[in-house]
Amino acid sequence: MKNSIMVINGPNLNLLGSRETGIYGMETLSEIKENMMRVAAEQTLEIDFRQSNREGEMVDWIHSATGSFSGLIINAGAYTHTSVALLDALLASQLPAVEVHLSNTQSREAFRHHSYIAKASIGIISGFGGFSYELALYALVRHLNLK
Amino acid sequence: MKNSIMVINGPNLNLLGSRETGIYGMETLSEIKENMMRVAAEQTLEIDFRQSNREGEMVDWIHSATGSFSGLIINAGAYTHTSVALLDALLASQLPAVEVHLSNTQSREAFRHHSYIAKASIGIISGFGGFSYELALYALVRHLNLK
Amino acid sequence: MKNSIMVINGPNLNLLGSRETGIYGMETLSEIKENMMRVAAEQTLEIDFRQSNREGEMVDWIHSATGSFSGLIINAGAYTHTSVALLDALLASQLPAVEVHLSNTQSREAFRHHSYIAKASIGIISGFGGFSYELALYALVRHLNLK
Amino acid sequence: MKNSIMVINGPNLNLLGSRETGIYGMETLSEIKENMMRVAAEQTLEIDFRQSNREGEMVDWIHSATGSFSGLIINAGAYTHTSVALLDALLASQLPAVEVHLSNTQSREAFRHHSYIAKASIGIISGFGGFSYELALYALVRHLNLK
Amino acid sequence: MKNSIMVINGPNLNLLGSRETGIYGMETLSEIKENMMRVAAEQTLEIDFRQSNREGEMVDWIHSATGSFSGLIINAGAYTHTSVALLDALLASQLPAVEVHLSNTQSREAFRHHSYIAKASIGIISGFGGFSYELALYALVRHLNLK
Amino acid sequence: MKNSIMVINGPNLNLLGSRETGIYGMETLSEIKENMMRVAAEQTLEIDFRQSNREGEMVDWIHSATGSFSGLIINAGAYTHTSVALLDALLASQLPAVEVHLSNTQSREAFRHHSYIAKASIGIISGFGGFSYELALYALVRHLNLK
Amino acid sequence: MKNSIMVINGPNLNLLGSRETGIYGMETLSEIKENMMRVAAEQTLEIDFRQSNREGEMVDWIHSATGSFSGLIINAGAYTHTSVALLDALLASQLPAVEVHLSNTQSREAFRHHSYIAKASIGIISGFGGFSYELALYALVRHLNLK
Amino acid sequence: MKNSIMVINGPNLNLLGSRETGIYGMETLSEIKENMMRVAAEQTLEIDFRQSNREGEMVDWIHSATGSFSGLIINAGAYTHTSVALLDALLASQLPAVEVHLSNTQSREAFRHHSYIAKASIGIISGFGGFSYELALYALVRHLNLK
Amino acid sequence: MKNSIMVINGPNLNLLGSRETGIYGMETLSEIKENMMRVAAEQTLEIDFRQSNREGEMVDWIHSATGSFSGLIINAGAYTHTSVALLDALLASQLPAVEVHLSNTQSREAFRHHSYIAKASIGIISGFGGFSYELALYALVRHLNLK
Amino acid sequence: MKNSIMVINGPNLNLLGSRETGIYGMETLSEIKENMMRVAAEQTLEIDFRQSNREGEMVDWIHSATGSFSGLIINAGAYTHTSVALLDALLASQLPAVEVHLSNTQSREAFRHHSYIAKASIGIISGFGGFSYELALYALVRHLNLK
Amino acid sequence: MKNSIMVINGPNLNLLGSRETGIYGMETLSEIKENMMRVAAEQTLEIDFRQSNREGEMVDWIHSATGSFSGLIINAGAYTHTSVALLDALLASQLPAVEVHLSNTQSREAFRHHSYIAKASIGIISGFGGFSYELALYALVRHLNLK
Amino acid sequence: MKNSIMVINGPNLNLLGSRETGIYGMETLSEIKENMMRVAAEQTLEIDFRQSNREGEMVDWIHSATGSFSGLIINAGAYTHTSVALLDALLASQLPAVEVHLSNTQSREAFRHHSYIAKASIGIISGFGGFSYELALYALVRHLNLK
Repeated sequence: MKNSIMVINGPNLNLLGSRETGIYGMETLSEIKENMMRVAAEQTLEIDFRQSNREGEMVDWIHSATGSFSGLIINAGAYTHTSVALLDALLASQLPAVEVHLSNTQSREAFRHHSYIAKASIGIISGFGGFSYELALYALVRHLNLK
Repeated sequence: MKNSIMVINGPNLNLLGSRETGIYGMETLSEIKENMMRVAAEQTLEIDFRQSNREGEMVDWIHSATGSFSGLIINAGAYTHTSVALLDALLASQLPAVEVHLSNTQSREAFRHHSYIAKASIGIISGFGGFSYELALYALVRHLNLK
Repeated sequence: MKNSIMVINGPNLNLLGSRETGIYGMETLSEIKENMMRVAAEQTLEIDFRQSNREGEMVDWIHSATGSFSGLIINAGAYTHTSVALLDALLASQLPAVEVHLSNTQSREAFRHHSYIAKASIGIISGFGGFSYELALYALVRHLNLK
Repeated sequence: MKNSIMVINGPNLNLLGSRETGIYGMETLSEIKENMMRVAAEQTLEIDFRQSNREGEMVDWIHSATGSFSGLIINAGAYTHTSVALLDALLASQLPAVEVHLSNTQSREAFRHHSYIAKASIGIISGFGGFSYELALYALVRHLNLK
Repeated sequence: MKNSIMVINGPNLNLLGSRETGIYGMETLSEIKENMMRVAAEQTLEIDFRQSNREGEMVDWIHSATGSFSGLIINAGAYTHTSVALLDALLASQLPAVEVHLSNTQSREAFRHHSYIAKASIGIISGFGGFSYELALYALVRHLNLK
Repeated sequence: MKNSIMVINGPNLNLLGSRETGIYGMETLSEIKENMMRVAAEQTLEIDFRQSNREGEMVDWIHSATGSFSGLIINAGAYTHTSVALLDALLASQLPAVEVHLSNTQSREAFRHHSYIAKASIGIISGFGGFSYELALYALVRHLNLK
Repeated sequence: MKNSIMVINGPNLNLLGSRETGIYGMETLSEIKENMMRVAAEQTLEIDFRQSNREGEMVDWIHSATGSFSGLIINAGAYTHTSVALLDALLASQLPAVEVHLSNTQSREAFRHHSYIAKASIGIISGFGGFSYELALYALVRHLNLK
Repeated sequence: MKNSIMVINGPNLNLLGSRETGIYGMETLSEIKENMMRVAAEQTLEIDFRQSNREGEMVDWIHSATGSFSGLIINAGAYTHTSVALLDALLASQLPAVEVHLSNTQSREAFRHHSYIAKASIGIISGFGGFSYELALYALVRHLNLK
Repeated sequence: MKNSIMVINGPNLNLLGSRETGIYGMETLSEIKENMMRVAAEQTLEIDFRQSNREGEMVDWIHSATGSFSGLIINAGAYTHTSVALLDALLASQLPAVEVHLSNTQSREAFRHHSYIAKASIGIISGFGGFSYELALYALVRHLNLK
Repeated sequence: MKNSIMVINGPNLNLLGSRETGIYGMETLSEIKENMMRVAAEQTLEIDFRQSNREGEMVDWIHSATGSFSGLIINAGAYTHTSVALLDALLASQLPAVEVHLSNTQSREAFRHHSYIAKASIGIISGFGGFSYELALYALVRHLNLK
Repeated sequence: MKNSIMVINGPNLNLLGSRETGIYGMETLSEIKENMMRVAAEQTLEIDFRQSNREGEMVDWIHSATGSFSGLIINAGAYTHTSVALLDALLASQLPAVEVHLSNTQSREAFRHHSYIAKASIGIISGFGGFSYELALYALVRHLNLK
Repeated sequence: MKNSIMVINGPNLNLLGSRETGIYGMETLSEIKENMMRVAAEQTLEIDFRQSNREGEMVDWIHSATGSFSGLIINAGAYTHTSVALLDALLASQLPAVEVHLSNTQSREAFRHHSYIAKASIGIISGFGGFSYELALYALVRHLNLK
């Protein structure tokens, strides 16, 4: 599955569309997934789109990506700010990863400004709701083609 | 199950009664549960009493409570101090939540003074051992009746 | 007066019911007192309910409680966050004390997160408006019976 | 010029292509501009692409944008981390702004982690070299269409 | 021009009246200037009223004031919080300076609480909108007469 | 007494004129009061001018002002930097308050830079000795007329 | 009363002998006073020995000492760590003051390490129980004779 | 299984041998396990060697060790730095635990310098690759014999 | 102009000789320039000696130096402590730079202890008044000859 | 030598009388020693009075005191603020130690406020010049008699 | 002496066996040395075992080790936390060094958590009393054989 | 020896030329000394050039310089960052001192940015290898001639 991108969604993202819509928008995670699928298809890419509320499961998924996927798009949600384990998993994976956020985390509470994930990412896209994912896909494709 | 309260217990609380009894007391989690059941019955409430050592599972439970429960009582244990994921789950749930602790966390080590959970709680009860839960139940019932 | 509880209210609590009602609620301090009296009577307890805007007077009251009262319920208001003198008075009194707050201080401004009082309290109840006091009374009675 | 986007580049970005190419890449600012022009044309947008090493001049440009432009894309370079003046200018402009960076500033020196600009941005795109600008354009167009 | 006061306005103040009127009020900088002129005329003083978005130009103006002006009124805007250069210019000028702010900076974001300018000012007036300037003029005149 | 202003002076201000005259000047508190009276008379305002060394008494006075006075001028002296109780009293009073200081507290020791009072003040005037009070009166009158 | 020393005791010191005797010792404040009286008599000095739980009253006493007393011995208790008002009173008094503590505050909790009082004291004696006062008297007498 | 040691490996350690070999070395976790088995056999000890990427599962394992195992060897990986839950589990277990690390965490990034685990460990061995485990076994055996 | 050194002086240095002479000495910037010219002539070097109060202009000058000058001597004045833009310009220039200061900035106020410039300098000379520049010239010449 | 006190003086104290006399006074260390000898003789005590500029030698002396001396008086000078080794030596010695300082270290630079020595001292006497030593002797004698 | 290991012990370690035995154990430094000798003999290694209370002497010994010893085992005691000089000596020596501690420094006072030594060590062993040294020897031998 | 300069070198500088030559260069301390001697001879100055790894010995040397030497050049090496004792010795000596460093300490690890020595130095020269010393000599001679 060499022409594939794994898209990993972290805790609480399964609630998108109903959760604090003032911050996160009305789009559901299914809608984001469908849009990703459509855009990926245009680029003859496959998308493996997942969500988990568990840090350890997300670590497992990152491990499983090595060798099978060309890159990662990761919205680690709350774990962005607290998980050294995800950082280490990304460092170990050696895959190019794009960090995405629906909201602009840098303009919210102070504890959301720091990202462990960022230390192992090629870049960050935050603040554009579900469209952040689509932009991340463009960015990752460009990155893979340039290498 | 609209007339129900979910009571969520976090990591290591399954060991109550044998774990550091000088700090946490001799009462077991089963005894706390039974007492809660009895008190709830007096108020024609149902209690769904759970315990998990896993942050992600606790996030799942909070998600599942929306629509089925009237409120939450949560002793997040060690995750109180480290989990942004639980905070986000509570914010997403929009359910009234009471934070409880067996010990008085504000008079213990400095890393136990900060609570992420508190930012999404209507109030906090700490330091009264298993009786903290009973007080939380009174507080939640009062809150629900006043709304 | 061995079967008595002293309830000490700190600065600005005399204004309850008119002061920032969005945060502190509509109940007046008199109403809280009356409710306390009623609940205490059910338990054959006496309540000495006081309010002062002066740190030093509150220190005096705590001193006077030793030997005459079985326990303390204290809402030190703003002095919670700044008064080492009240902490020392509580430590000297050797009486069991329950710290109460009308609002959930842990979810407000950062300078309200720290409590000197907590270091000398058996437990904390915060965020339930005037009902915090009633819960504190239950907690203190339970504590006194268990000793 | 209602259908226009102002793109503001801050200090040292005029050196792109020769400056620390290991961090910032080989692409020159002219090449980025040309690419932006081409992409904008596809979307029947006009681009006003500028660069300045002067904080004050950048403030002037943001002022001038109000009323004449639909949105801003800003790579404030080093001023990102130190300029309250630019933050205030963006707040005053009330225009939607996208913050871009060539490098992933969150994985570099600690003093590059904080952004004043972010407090007045709808979102941030960092780490994709010159392609960050193209992504910012997509993001801004999407944002303007959704409003 | 010994009987003159230089009034220096920093970045973004040219936008007064349209910029974040909830914080800064409806009065324009021209109206403030006119009012200053009128008040000064009553006291047979001349006012040299200037605005710049550039830190360096503000430094130049402070330099030029020595020998030609009796005192300074300065609203350094955002540079209040970040500019050691303006502090040094004021220290070098040896002119009495009054620091003014339209809003009460001490009750806004934490990064607006610190003032480099204050270390070289005789006093500070903040929070009274355009009237802060008029008060500053009274204060400076009084200071000059008392010397 | 609706056309009245309460002027509250905090600890050690009774010593003005003899206390550290290099910092606080030669004017006594009586002289400041007399001057205030004279200026107020010109504006058909009444002034209630008080001084206390006691935090609690100052809290009482602020409480008493609500309903009887149109506004407050407060020089809380040392309590400016340490008293959450005064902050809460001012927030509860809902009266417009002007914070004054004789010296420029922002250019003195670091522990004098922070003001709790400021969070509940419309504005601050500091550094002009006794004349700070007169300016505060002008500021408060202007504020009351504009409302 | 020029040949007199005022000895000021702060909050909770009235409880000496019964309060936390492991830290503060068995000697009562009366016994300390009597001992001071006896030692002072040997040196033909008069002692005015006072205790208050009120910060404001302690400020008053320091004010009253100027002109009537030759020096101060002050155990400000908990106010040592929190009172800028007492610091300012001591600075205003211009009397030599010796700071005393019964316990060694530098080896206790971190919030007892800082002393505002110290900035206005000629020296500090801490850790010798009631004997700290006697040493302070010797130190002050020596200081007064040397001047 | 009283003569047994549980060896718990945390997140990402399953990747040893392929993950950042410059830091963690070439040895796989299987090879470490085999070596541990061999050494343990020499000492007539049994080893229960486990790995998990999940904080909660690791908490479960520590709970299960009490009563069945004589001691613990734990390499908590990234959770070393972030998990209060593991600390509490170790404190509850009352088993002697040795903390091990493959790399010398004290000479790496600052966020790897702090260990929650250390507060409940008898000792720490870090920096010797897979041999750290063998040393930990010697240390634990010695500790158990000395008790 | 390959055998040339650019000497860049930052804000307020144009006032040398009249500005705070207790700290900065009596020598004017012209005198420093003349001395530099004389010393440079002895070494058959050309000196381009400039001063600006504008951060952006200083950035421009550093850019212009690449390719035309062999090295830089920079006294960034107040911008030393606040300008990431100058740091980035120096990093981009890849020219050897010597940082100079007239006063010993490490023994002055704390905010003058940190230097962004230092991260891109080969060395620092501070505290010797105008002679610091002459020493910097010797240091730079030596450095260029050794390369 | 059971009836003896070791008095240890740290770095730079050999210069007393000539060193910064504004801070440390005119008395030499010899004069302090002679005075100590005279006072000790009155109490039939022997004094072993030493000075060293070397941290290690001071550690040796503290070691040698155990078993031979009844107590220690220590002015560790600059090492007060930086030496964990001296703290450990005092803890190991188990001798009562009085910490002395000539100047009032709490009213000087911030880096002189912290004392490692204090954690192993029965008490502290600071600010009374050479007389601090005499007071320390009285304090230590009293302490030894009370035990 | 190429087949030799230098073992350096820092301040207060000469007191082992009598010093705070609750923390450091009953074993003396001689006994540790003898044990080291015995274990080294088994591996045909020579041990040069030293102790000093002086930072400078320890620096000298590290210098002398280069060229004559194969590696270092160092228990720098209190200097672990304060000595940059020892760090620099180890960096200069280029010898493999193992840091040892008798107690688990990470579970003691906060000022014992930081190690300068660690930045120049291959690994750390702490908490196993005298057996820490034996483990360090195994670790160093293994390291030397693997190189 | 009034026409003499003492040059003091601190810990590890005896290893120059072999120690971390990437940072400190290839020149040995002997070569630096010889160069200093030659340059001093040209100026009819004598140089007393010393090196010690011991903080206390360096303190002694500074003491001995007063009265015999005209000034000091000091490279305190690692003690620069940790020694209050050296600071106090320099303050006591009242000799002009120039601080030198081979490397640019401000661009290395954060713990090398702070200098206690700087508070007692006329100026600092860092980053020019052995040539830093020669520049320091010029600076000191200039300083002495100007006095």
